[in-house]
Amino acid sequence: MKPYAFGVDIGGTTVKIGLFTTQGELLEKWEIPTRTENSGENVLPDIARSITTHLGLKDISADQVEGIGVGVPGPVGQDFTVYKCVNLGWGVFNVKERMNELLPDIPNVAAGNDANVAALGELWMGGGKGHKSAVMFTLGTGVGGGVVMDDQIVAGTNGGAGEVGHMTVNPEETVQCSCGKYGCLEQYASANGIVRMGKVMLAQSDKPSKLREMEKFSSKDICDLAREGEEMALNIVDKCGEYLGRAMSYVSCTIDPEIYVIGGGMSRAGAIVTNSILKYYQKYAFHVSTGTGIAVAKLGNDAGMYGCVKMILSD
Amino acid sequence: MKPYAFGVDIGGTTVKIGLFTTQGELLEKWEIPTRTENSGENVLPDIARSITTHLGLKDISADQVEGIGVGVPGPVGQDFTVYKCVNLGWGVFNVKERMNELLPDIPNVAAGNDANVAALGELWMGGGKGHKSAVMFTLGTGVGGGVVMDDQIVAGTNGGAGEVGHMTVNPEETVQCSCGKYGCLEQYASANGIVRMGKVMLAQSDKPSKLREMEKFSSKDICDLAREGEEMALNIVDKCGEYLGRAMSYVSCTIDPEIYVIGGGMSRAGAIVTNSILKYYQKYAFHVSTGTGIAVAKLGNDAGMYGCVKMILSD
Repeated sequence: MKPYAFGVDIGGTTVKIGLFTTQGELLEKWEIPTRTENSGENVLPDIARSITTHLGLKDISADQVEGIGVGVPGPVGQDFTVYKCVNLGWGVFNVKERMNELLPDIPNVAAGNDANVAALGELWMGGGKGHKSAVMFTLGTGVGGGVVMDDQIVAGTNGGAGEVGHMTVNPEETVQCSCGKYGCLEQYASANGIVRMGKVMLAQSDKPSKLREMEKFSSKDICDLAREGEEMALNIVDKCGEYLGRAMSYVSCTIDPEIYVIGGGMSRAGAIVTNSILKYYQKYAFHVSTGTGIAVAKLGNDAGMYGCVKMILSD
Repeated sequence: MKPYAFGVDIGGTTVKIGLFTTQGELLEKWEIPTRTENSGENVLPDIARSITTHLGLKDISADQVEGIGVGVPGPVGQDFTVYKCVNLGWGVFNVKERMNELLPDIPNVAAGNDANVAALGELWMGGGKGHKSAVMFTLGTGVGGGVVMDDQIVAGTNGGAGEVGHMTVNPEETVQCSCGKYGCLEQYASANGIVRMGKVMLAQSDKPSKLREMEKFSSKDICDLAREGEEMALNIVDKCGEYLGRAMSYVSCTIDPEIYVIGGGMSRAGAIVTNSILKYYQKYAFHVSTGTGIAVAKLGNDAGMYGCVKMILSD
């Protein structure tokens, strides 16, 4: 095993690049802008140039680098072909082949979907450390997810594995999800979702709440008030936990992973959220799986870079 | 690869044993009684004796046998340890080690849970043939399931993978499932479940139905009347299809398999059941996975034996 590796997490605005040891230590990280113009043709060349520059600055030669892992905000096949990536303007092409043209001296390249790669990173060095299989639920603007089994990302036949945010947890819902369906988990458990659900629950209830006095409230406001013990806010968090816990029970009835990892902004609320999820998970899970734990993500925005490195080590 | 292999599917009453070519042809099959007395201590010795006898009859030597795969009606770990098997009276022990003591000349032994092994068999030579990943739903007395990815059984951390029959598809249910939870898929989509649900729907409806004239009706009666076009029976099948299709959409949001295979008695009703499942699957699945097909199992009670053989070939 060579001593160094790069983790490259491509986002719609910036690319996060990390220089790691192959033991999993993040030595240095930096960002470069994501130039999406002209169908994003500059994105990978910019990354290659940045890596070459940093190798020079650090006096590291290419043959000391085990490989480069790349996280992409779109569906990626097992052979590292990316299938359109709207945020980057990308069409269909093979990320490994393109990177090999750009940096022929570092042939070991792997690519994966950003949510899946973040799950792998958390399993390797974050909230799921010490486990071989984990399913991550990222509670951000939407609800993303990633499935890792035996240290390998599960991408799914159509890149649809880990799309836990689009499980239909409420078939009676009349408001449409951004995906076109009705009653997706994301409509209740994302940062936007819990606010929307909170407004509905406030309108249906007479309970007093400080949320009523706010012109606009956020998911953080709801979680903060719940932590202070406000009954209405606790009810909203509880309902969110019910949907999340039930969705996890569906995952357990399918693959029975070792651990769940909760990431994204809402995960920062900590025990008030995880305890509520756990209560319903244990209610709905099949008895053999009720002991599965729920950990909070630890790597924040670095999770993707860590997972990118782990991808090349696993291959 | 040696030319022959044995598939051994242990049930609570009989053990099904099949002599296969390693190409997957079932040459001969027979049954022996499952002697469950004395903690089932005779079950594996009886199997070993029966295999030895048949090798003699067929004039096949042990070194022409690639291996023996064993399906067990209980949870089985990745190392072939069985974790209690109530139907057989078994405690915890390693099936491979025990078989190696009994038949040292055929060292390649694998063991798996019977539902998982049946799914593997259907993927190899049955309804899922030609695919690498499949999830099977067996609609029998209960609703069993099995998950196969990359030709390997997914057992789960606690043996809970593929327990699709215990997904809570109706959190409002007040009748308890045999597992202790409320609203499991099995309560609506098993042979008993659809009858129970049918009775509830009949009581809540004024629609005429031949089912009302029967003193006792079966899942087959419901499916037969639905196929004849009776509206009430169609409504019952439709509701069953809704629960099944929704449960499959949860599986797709987790691992996005290539194909679903429906087995068990209810699958014999054919298109009337699968079309109804497909309608709701497509409604609830995330858009990338809506094209996933639903096949009907083809191997019937032999699926387990086929899967047992495939297990030893995959290792």
